Amino acid sequence: MSSLHSGLKDTIVALATANGIGAISVIRLSGDQAIEICNKVFKGKDLEKVASHTVHFGTIRSNEKIIDEVLVSVFKAPNSYTKENTIEISCHGSNYIVNQIIQLLIKNGAVAAKPGEFTFRAFLNGQLDLSQAEAVADLISSSSAASHQIAMQQMRGGFSNELKKLREELIHFASLVELELDFSEEDVEFANRDQMKVLIEKILFVLRKLIQSFELGNVIKKGVPVVIAGKPNVGKSTLLNALLNEERAIVSDIAGTTRDTVEDEINIQGINFRFIDTAGIRDTEDIIEAKGVEKTFEKIQTSAIVIYLFDPSETQGEEFKKIISELLRITQKNKSQLIIVANKADKNVDLKNIDLTNLAFNSADESKIIQISALQKQGIAEIEERLLQLIHFNQHEQGEIILTNIRHVEALQKSSDALERVLHGIDNPVTSDFLAMDIKESLHYLGEITGAISTDDLLDNIFSKFCIGK
Amino acid sequence: MSSLHSGLKDTIVALATANGIGAISVIRLSGDQAIEICNKVFKGKDLEKVASHTVHFGTIRSNEKIIDEVLVSVFKAPNSYTKENTIEISCHGSNYIVNQIIQLLIKNGAVAAKPGEFTFRAFLNGQLDLSQAEAVADLISSSSAASHQIAMQQMRGGFSNELKKLREELIHFASLVELELDFSEEDVEFANRDQMKVLIEKILFVLRKLIQSFELGNVIKKGVPVVIAGKPNVGKSTLLNALLNEERAIVSDIAGTTRDTVEDEINIQGINFRFIDTAGIRDTEDIIEAKGVEKTFEKIQTSAIVIYLFDPSETQGEEFKKIISELLRITQKNKSQLIIVANKADKNVDLKNIDLTNLAFNSADESKIIQISALQKQGIAEIEERLLQLIHFNQHEQGEIILTNIRHVEALQKSSDALERVLHGIDNPVTSDFLAMDIKESLHYLGEITGAISTDDLLDNIFSKFCIGK
Repeated sequence: MSSLHSGLKDTIVALATANGIGAISVIRLSGDQAIEICNKVFKGKDLEKVASHTVHFGTIRSNEKIIDEVLVSVFKAPNSYTKENTIEISCHGSNYIVNQIIQLLIKNGAVAAKPGEFTFRAFLNGQLDLSQAEAVADLISSSSAASHQIAMQQMRGGFSNELKKLREELIHFASLVELELDFSEEDVEFANRDQMKVLIEKILFVLRKLIQSFELGNVIKKGVPVVIAGKPNVGKSTLLNALLNEERAIVSDIAGTTRDTVEDEINIQGINFRFIDTAGIRDTEDIIEAKGVEKTFEKIQTSAIVIYLFDPSETQGEEFKKIISELLRITQKNKSQLIIVANKADKNVDLKNIDLTNLAFNSADESKIIQISALQKQGIAEIEERLLQLIHFNQHEQGEIILTNIRHVEALQKSSDALERVLHGIDNPVTSDFLAMDIKESLHYLGEITGAISTDDLLDNIFSKFCIGK
Repeated sequence: MSSLHSGLKDTIVALATANGIGAISVIRLSGDQAIEICNKVFKGKDLEKVASHTVHFGTIRSNEKIIDEVLVSVFKAPNSYTKENTIEISCHGSNYIVNQIIQLLIKNGAVAAKPGEFTFRAFLNGQLDLSQAEAVADLISSSSAASHQIAMQQMRGGFSNELKKLREELIHFASLVELELDFSEEDVEFANRDQMKVLIEKILFVLRKLIQSFELGNVIKKGVPVVIAGKPNVGKSTLLNALLNEERAIVSDIAGTTRDTVEDEINIQGINFRFIDTAGIRDTEDIIEAKGVEKTFEKIQTSAIVIYLFDPSETQGEEFKKIISELLRITQKNKSQLIIVANKADKNVDLKNIDLTNLAFNSADESKIIQISALQKQGIAEIEERLLQLIHFNQHEQGEIILTNIRHVEALQKSSDALERVLHGIDNPVTSDFLAMDIKESLHYLGEITGAISTDDLLDNIFSKFCIGK
């Protein structure tokens, strides 16, 4: 049994706001006894007698000692996040007070909540399905407009609804095929094989598209890793600073709500690009000279995009071509992308002399050299534009569902594999029981995503990653 | 004009909970337009039409883009902390979302709150007086039962009420003396000088007691600085660890609400004792040998209590007496206290042979050597008991007012000085105008404490120390 299942009758309590000193902190209680337990320590109105969704001023007392003056919000089942009776105590934002109040509530019958237990109850009580519950965690940790938008869409059920529809259609056929099993000796076909093929191909199309969206979803969620490579003194840090400064100037911090600035991360139109520390990368001269080049280029291998910066006034034709050729080989192997950037545009070197013929570029864009002056901050916008193009975010339709969760992708892949077997089984006729087995397997994995089908291990695994209080 | 006074008509907004990731964050809006501004971005019930102290589920939207699903609590003037219209938005606890919502509210007419601005408005609107407002900040930063208790008492007006009563009685006499000024040519005495003396002596008694309480209040608020001194290898760190471990065992942390543990701080019956790093203190042999002893003993000078630890089996009679004598000289000079502790009680050395005659101890207790075994954790409770005794907390009556704020002490001192001059003026008759001047000065300083009299500089100074959102 899931460790979270064990205490469902308990009334749980935890700090719901971030840890630390603030003007206020909010402590949350959920469960049958939430109102009753709070009432025991709250001096003010009788909380058992007030309406749901009302707020009451009073004091929290231990015996007659006042621990704090608080505001208590009352939410009556099923009209709360967990669909259980819920109390939110808004107290002064001191760790000492928060601890005192939580201890007092525990002494009066509450139990300290486990990580994710509030959301787990919301899931069990049908407030959220599993993928929506997962989106809550993503939403809290989202740090860019794009990752926020995807998590919000998922939390509000966009993805779940799409899956639910597909699953229902498939269930219809599954039941018909099951019915055939009951008549197996008579060799009837209740499920029209042609219609079934059409439906399964439709579902497969959607699943494949969702699976493909994960590539983009993942970079949006985690940020796109970018490396700036180039010879010493070509201006790599100047370029990095130019990119970072442009960003910093846009971000207008509101006092008191410091943005979680990740060192060397820029946000372009809602997408985070993470610049990987390139300190460990050898001079690019090493690419063609040193042995074991790829080992020294580990950083490049973990990046989705490599910006190769060079100074055209100091670049020899053949050497340059060799470097680019080697970089193309590595990026193609890693399925990453290359951006070639000529720095020191102020020197007015003609790029026409640079020979890029016969190189195996992935696209015409990739072979276009961007000219910049990192020092004078010219051409930075062009690099940003190219970065965005490369992750195809621009081509993505507004409102289209993007997957960010590896668990979902794996389940979709397994579901899709099973459907491929069904298709194959229809074309190379197998008995209904084989078809039924594969359809059921496909349904199983689709159901796992939303939690229509779940195991305790799966639930434990998902909710244990939540923070306490959520 | 105070910088806080400048924007009183603005509706202010700030994050009210601690910064960082949590299940939820609370954003607070206060001002005439609070409800109207929130209504512009909230999709759910019309907040203008709901009752005060009610909570409403809905979404915050920028154009049609959903920023978050939130709960909005509505508080209508004057029934809120600030006595203004107030909105609390409980959103998902992500910095990104908090920033987006605050920016959106600012775009719709709110202004980012300055530090302490919510409490400043509560003060201006008569919800709290100045000393109560200051107690709010103390309450938030309180980290021990004692400091919490004092701040709570002050916030709930205990101290203010006492002052208010005294001030009113004094005002009565002040007005009579003022009246005498109008009849100055006739040499009448409306204010009975004997009654006035009785009252002023009564007030002085209270003021002196309050001023004295600061010594205790200050150590309670900041923790009592303690130094463990002693020769190398006598067991100083073993003792410190024994003291700390005893404490750590008592503290049962609730998961997710980590207690702000201060390194080397123990809490005995609600009082924090801070153990100052003694790394910089030379061997105590230096006390009698080296020149410039006091300079090396800076740490001892900043401590309120010195624990001198020695090993009786290795202690020579005369040398020991010299060390104690020097420590007594230093502690007496600094008004600090000495605790003599004999370690390694397991060695069964008879302490009777230790000669402490003719030493200038402050008390019989001080001359009593505590025998412990730091290693076996014996005698630790006795040290704790002595520590408590030394700060006289035990002798303090429950519910008695303890000052913790240096500003209050200074104002009380000035008020008290002025009253001393009044007393002197009555005994050595001066004209009514001199008496009136001193009484007014005394009243002025009493009024400054509660903010009955305040200057913009004073207010700026007080509220600028608050955190934003409070």
